[in-house]
Amino acid sequence: MTQKRTFTILILSACAFLMAQAQDYTIYVNPFIGTQTDETGALSGSTFPGATMPQGMVQLSPETEQMVTWDPCSGYDYNKDKIYGFTHTHLSGTGCTDLFDVSLMPTSSEVTPEQLAAADFSQHYSHNAEEAHPGYYSVYLQESGVRAELSSTVRTGIHRYTFPEGKEQTIVLDLDRGTFRGQAYYSGRRSYDIIQSQLRIINDHTIEGYRVITGWAKLRKVYFRAEFSRPFNKRLLMDGSRNAGKSDVVNGRTLRCALSFSPADSRHLTVKVAISPVDVEGARKNMKAEASSWQFDAYTKAAHDCWEHELKRIEIEGTDEQKTIFYTGLYHVLMQPNTMSDVDGRYMDTNYEIKQMPAGQTYHSTFSLWDTFRAAHPLYTLIAPEVASQFVRDMILHHKTYGYLPIWDLWGQENYCMIGNHAIPVVADAILANLPGINVEEAYQAMIESSTRTHLNSPFEIWEQYGYMPQTLQNTSVSITLEQCFDDACVAAVAKKLGRMEDYERFHRRSLFYRNLFDPTTGFFRPKDEKGEWIEGFDPLSYEQPCFVEGNAWQYMWFVPHDPQGLISLFGGEKPFLKKLDENFSLTATSGEINGNASGFIGQYAHGNEPSHHTVYLYNFAGRPERTQELVHQVRTEFYRATPCGYAGNDDCGQMSAWYIFSSLGFYPFHAGSAEYVLGTPLFQRATLHMANGKDFIITAKNKTPERIYVKKVRLNGKPLKGFTLTHQQIVDGGTLEFTMK
Amino acid sequence: MTQKRTFTILILSACAFLMAQAQDYTIYVNPFIGTQTDETGALSGSTFPGATMPQGMVQLSPETEQMVTWDPCSGYDYNKDKIYGFTHTHLSGTGCTDLFDVSLMPTSSEVTPEQLAAADFSQHYSHNAEEAHPGYYSVYLQESGVRAELSSTVRTGIHRYTFPEGKEQTIVLDLDRGTFRGQAYYSGRRSYDIIQSQLRIINDHTIEGYRVITGWAKLRKVYFRAEFSRPFNKRLLMDGSRNAGKSDVVNGRTLRCALSFSPADSRHLTVKVAISPVDVEGARKNMKAEASSWQFDAYTKAAHDCWEHELKRIEIEGTDEQKTIFYTGLYHVLMQPNTMSDVDGRYMDTNYEIKQMPAGQTYHSTFSLWDTFRAAHPLYTLIAPEVASQFVRDMILHHKTYGYLPIWDLWGQENYCMIGNHAIPVVADAILANLPGINVEEAYQAMIESSTRTHLNSPFEIWEQYGYMPQTLQNTSVSITLEQCFDDACVAAVAKKLGRMEDYERFHRRSLFYRNLFDPTTGFFRPKDEKGEWIEGFDPLSYEQPCFVEGNAWQYMWFVPHDPQGLISLFGGEKPFLKKLDENFSLTATSGEINGNASGFIGQYAHGNEPSHHTVYLYNFAGRPERTQELVHQVRTEFYRATPCGYAGNDDCGQMSAWYIFSSLGFYPFHAGSAEYVLGTPLFQRATLHMANGKDFIITAKNKTPERIYVKKVRLNGKPLKGFTLTHQQIVDGGTLEFTMK
Repeated sequence: MTQKRTFTILILSACAFLMAQAQDYTIYVNPFIGTQTDETGALSGSTFPGATMPQGMVQLSPETEQMVTWDPCSGYDYNKDKIYGFTHTHLSGTGCTDLFDVSLMPTSSEVTPEQLAAADFSQHYSHNAEEAHPGYYSVYLQESGVRAELSSTVRTGIHRYTFPEGKEQTIVLDLDRGTFRGQAYYSGRRSYDIIQSQLRIINDHTIEGYRVITGWAKLRKVYFRAEFSRPFNKRLLMDGSRNAGKSDVVNGRTLRCALSFSPADSRHLTVKVAISPVDVEGARKNMKAEASSWQFDAYTKAAHDCWEHELKRIEIEGTDEQKTIFYTGLYHVLMQPNTMSDVDGRYMDTNYEIKQMPAGQTYHSTFSLWDTFRAAHPLYTLIAPEVASQFVRDMILHHKTYGYLPIWDLWGQENYCMIGNHAIPVVADAILANLPGINVEEAYQAMIESSTRTHLNSPFEIWEQYGYMPQTLQNTSVSITLEQCFDDACVAAVAKKLGRMEDYERFHRRSLFYRNLFDPTTGFFRPKDEKGEWIEGFDPLSYEQPCFVEGNAWQYMWFVPHDPQGLISLFGGEKPFLKKLDENFSLTATSGEINGNASGFIGQYAHGNEPSHHTVYLYNFAGRPERTQELVHQVRTEFYRATPCGYAGNDDCGQMSAWYIFSSLGFYPFHAGSAEYVLGTPLFQRATLHMANGKDFIITAKNKTPERIYVKKVRLNGKPLKGFTLTHQQIVDGGTLEFTMK
Repeated sequence: MTQKRTFTILILSACAFLMAQAQDYTIYVNPFIGTQTDETGALSGSTFPGATMPQGMVQLSPETEQMVTWDPCSGYDYNKDKIYGFTHTHLSGTGCTDLFDVSLMPTSSEVTPEQLAAADFSQHYSHNAEEAHPGYYSVYLQESGVRAELSSTVRTGIHRYTFPEGKEQTIVLDLDRGTFRGQAYYSGRRSYDIIQSQLRIINDHTIEGYRVITGWAKLRKVYFRAEFSRPFNKRLLMDGSRNAGKSDVVNGRTLRCALSFSPADSRHLTVKVAISPVDVEGARKNMKAEASSWQFDAYTKAAHDCWEHELKRIEIEGTDEQKTIFYTGLYHVLMQPNTMSDVDGRYMDTNYEIKQMPAGQTYHSTFSLWDTFRAAHPLYTLIAPEVASQFVRDMILHHKTYGYLPIWDLWGQENYCMIGNHAIPVVADAILANLPGINVEEAYQAMIESSTRTHLNSPFEIWEQYGYMPQTLQNTSVSITLEQCFDDACVAAVAKKLGRMEDYERFHRRSLFYRNLFDPTTGFFRPKDEKGEWIEGFDPLSYEQPCFVEGNAWQYMWFVPHDPQGLISLFGGEKPFLKKLDENFSLTATSGEINGNASGFIGQYAHGNEPSHHTVYLYNFAGRPERTQELVHQVRTEFYRATPCGYAGNDDCGQMSAWYIFSSLGFYPFHAGSAEYVLGTPLFQRATLHMANGKDFIITAKNKTPERIYVKKVRLNGKPLKGFTLTHQQIVDGGTLEFTMK
């Protein structure tokens, strides 16, 4: 509901509205970008090509795997040639996998009990007979000859199946698909299993049910209601190999049904599947509110229009390839965080209680914060403040029930994936940017408590006692030390703004603890034990140092975004700092280890994973902005392509995309959470940001050609810009940013 | 709430009330009966000695095991000499284990982080320093010198700890206690694990939290609020070995805290712990409604008074030992089914949705129906119709969400333990007995659907196609065939009463399918394959025949309670039937196998498990009532004792107790679900049943001495009773049943 109001507000921005009449930005979105691993098999955006609305609860997409284990975590690999089913929930770009609820798959033959028990209805497909654009996906399934088309509302998946003339028409609904079972390697979880599920035939065109499942999200309850446009005249209901016979309800853990439709009636079958994380009544209400019609094309058009309103928040002038990368990126950024409340506002909180949002408000989840605090959340704050403030409100709700702000919030629950407390920069950004709708006192309280209440991977007594994380007391101690300093700096900045000077002093002091792990002898951040001694066996190239997470000492060396001058001075000034930074981008030596997370290399710089993302902008702080400009150009040219393997690593819920969007506009949230940006180099001759307040911020690049990547001068609203920093306020006030290229 | 209203209604029964002034029945309750395994180690009632209200949600009792695995499933073994903690939820008499939520344990020394991580605060105790009566339990813990006293409201556990003078005072709260982890052998479940939990310090005398756990009950959410009568001045909060430091909240899967209280303040500490299956707000409301006072003794008195009102539903004249066995049995029967809704009426349904009961109504769970349909439920129907009709209503609610009536309902969920659909006789009994408050149409619909919707162990297409369960298609086929026939007879009887003659014909026909598995050659019920051939390798003594569940062919031979004359005719008439029946009680041969369920033998008769329970009454139907009378006398004399090992097998939620209650009154629900009883032999000279309608049914036994066990004649309301059957209506109408003994 709020979703729709948001779009309305945007439509009222007259300028954007009028321009939107002339342009269609959805044509530049290629949902296949990021779905393919490259020739080495190592890199994948892990995105999915299916149909979704912005922040959709339902994200309806095909799986190319019988059981999804790791890569791609989205369930779809462009290199595979078979589709196993269409499920209603997915993660985009993550490095762990979960969801895949309520699978539908059509066949054009009768399904026997033995076949249903075997549960493999996979069929070949070809990319030539596959199509995807925002809110629409379609594929031709070769064995059955069925064309499958998918669309979606926020909480309801819409399917249209076109069967070949005169053939059987069967739909297999599988509640046991998409998950691998058994030991899970995810933080804190041991088993990954369906706890219980139900399928119930309501009448000859309606099925309801649910599954309760434990996995990466510790406990998910997914209720659904499926309505079919035509009556089924036969149905087979089974739990594993147990046939439920004439029973119209089956309970168990491996539930499937096969529904047969009369070929004489029509070749077309439309199916609507609404889901709810609360109860089946929630699913019914969601369908009633969002999907009362049977007009498949109307859903496709509504989804298209909705995406169009979203995408035109930023208008660029560029080549078709640039627009494709840019708008697909924006699409990937805006897919999540996902809607987690029903239309009636009910949701399951972090403590598994059912709660009620105030009327008209929506609760969200999927906060991949170790990734997205860097650029995705700053992008929400900048171009979609009305949803950004909802995300912050939802993080504060998470804090209220759970005790601290989310680390990685999936399906409304904490899974502790990765490290740090990187909701803090997001909340800080919201406060410093004066986002409307934020309860600043509550937000500040949440930041403070999340920075002082010891929790998993955040032992704050140890932090304050030692002034660093001793590796002997806390694993991944160097990474945590660096990232915690950054979070602390964000708290300090907000404390200062609010005049809480005691807090400011405490957190500012903490934000400098990174210095205690810098070893001037080796010129790296290194792990210490609790006696303060360096731990031996340090190898800066190695990815298997337990003091780092998903990176080596080179990649983590630069993570002091809140105090670059302090970092420079650790090296003894700009010159030695620049020598080391240059080496970072040129040293091609490797430890020989295979690391699934580091990819997209320029020397030790690894664009394929997040710790590097701000690093190219560091040259600005040491007087060499042209090197930043070169590297920004190199990264966006080499590591982004308008092809299915267009990303250099996981898109990570839009972070990889958000880097591109900022970096092609010409600035980047180097210090996320500060409501400030540093300059890079623009890619487009002209870009317009339609702010939510109705104002436009227009970025132009004079003399821009593909070859001209260096910035000669910059004027803000006609006056020379001092320094290389742009504030959030300067942008949202509207105006012009004129680059002149050389 | 309803609970309390119930007692009020009873108080208004003037006669009972006045008599209660003179008598205290709770003094005859010995909660230790059933807690001890005998010298062979094989038999245990599996009851617990702790404090509970009738049908309490909270049942607060000590554990003598670090991790409960099997025997005793209640967590308390009288033979053990250490107590590990006091937890708030227990099962009484079951053969599988679960629950044990929120453990508290006092110590009189400081607790270090290492000790809290090791989680063993067990202490020795002696039965000499242990006391239990309804609503009260107390024990002296030797190492700490702490006296622990427990009481309870329906949803709140009340603890009083008295520490030794001048010693430390610490309470350890453990959310990870009582459960074994890992592979579970329970039907349909694979793992048994805590999914997530939380502990939160609310202020210096309040803690809240929850745990979500999967086990025998597939998914339980247990929220709690704990209030302490004095402030704690120190607290240690940990997740396993991870110290949460100064944090006032900890999330994880192995949560414990140690709370220290100043010895200078007082030696006494009272703790109130309310739980909720819905949310922490539910626990708060439960405490507010039920436990606002800090007067421990007031709770003890309230619980005592409540039990007194319950127990005086039946008044007997007998020896102290007889009264002890009788009233302890009545206590064990009335402990469950357990309250499963909060005071505000909210509960979690079978599909894990939060639902709301109508104002003032209570939802119940713990339906161990394969056991309790036999005598425990008929006893509720007879003496506590107002709660019996609630149980039936709750079973129908279960049916509505789950699709069929409960088989074994734990914490509001189906666990499919054992076989049959034995909610059907309970519902039938309610309809045939004209229990008030039953929606007969809904109840009938639930019976029909539970008898026709194929589900786990109930493949009704196979049933109707073959006229028996072929062992090749359904395991435990002979037991299921016999028990399904019985359930079908109950449906048929209700159909007949309601004039649904088509249904009557169908289910009556089904109720006779047992005949298809009778092998006249061997004189046993035997398994067939789907071709109708006897399956070879049949051994009537063996407990490892897969066609039987928890019994051998001898014990199952007699399970045709709905058609004893049909059974007799299968044997070729009374004479050969009696020969076989005599052999049943005399044949001491064994297969040599150890079977944990069969015990309490008289020949092949095994009173320690339920399939035998009606068998002693079979002689009535073949013209030898005196043999029934002898055997009833023998069973109640040999297999019931007023000692901790007083039961011959698991009490199974009161079934073993209910057998004694009926059989000592002089009649028994041979055909449960028929609202009829058959005569045995009375144990007491006089017994009075105070019916809920205000009428009394008085049973007298003229010339009764311990030796006189045979019934010479029986008069009902002064007139000779024809036959050996008594109807429910005859009893509830009030009157006199006069036995004359010989």
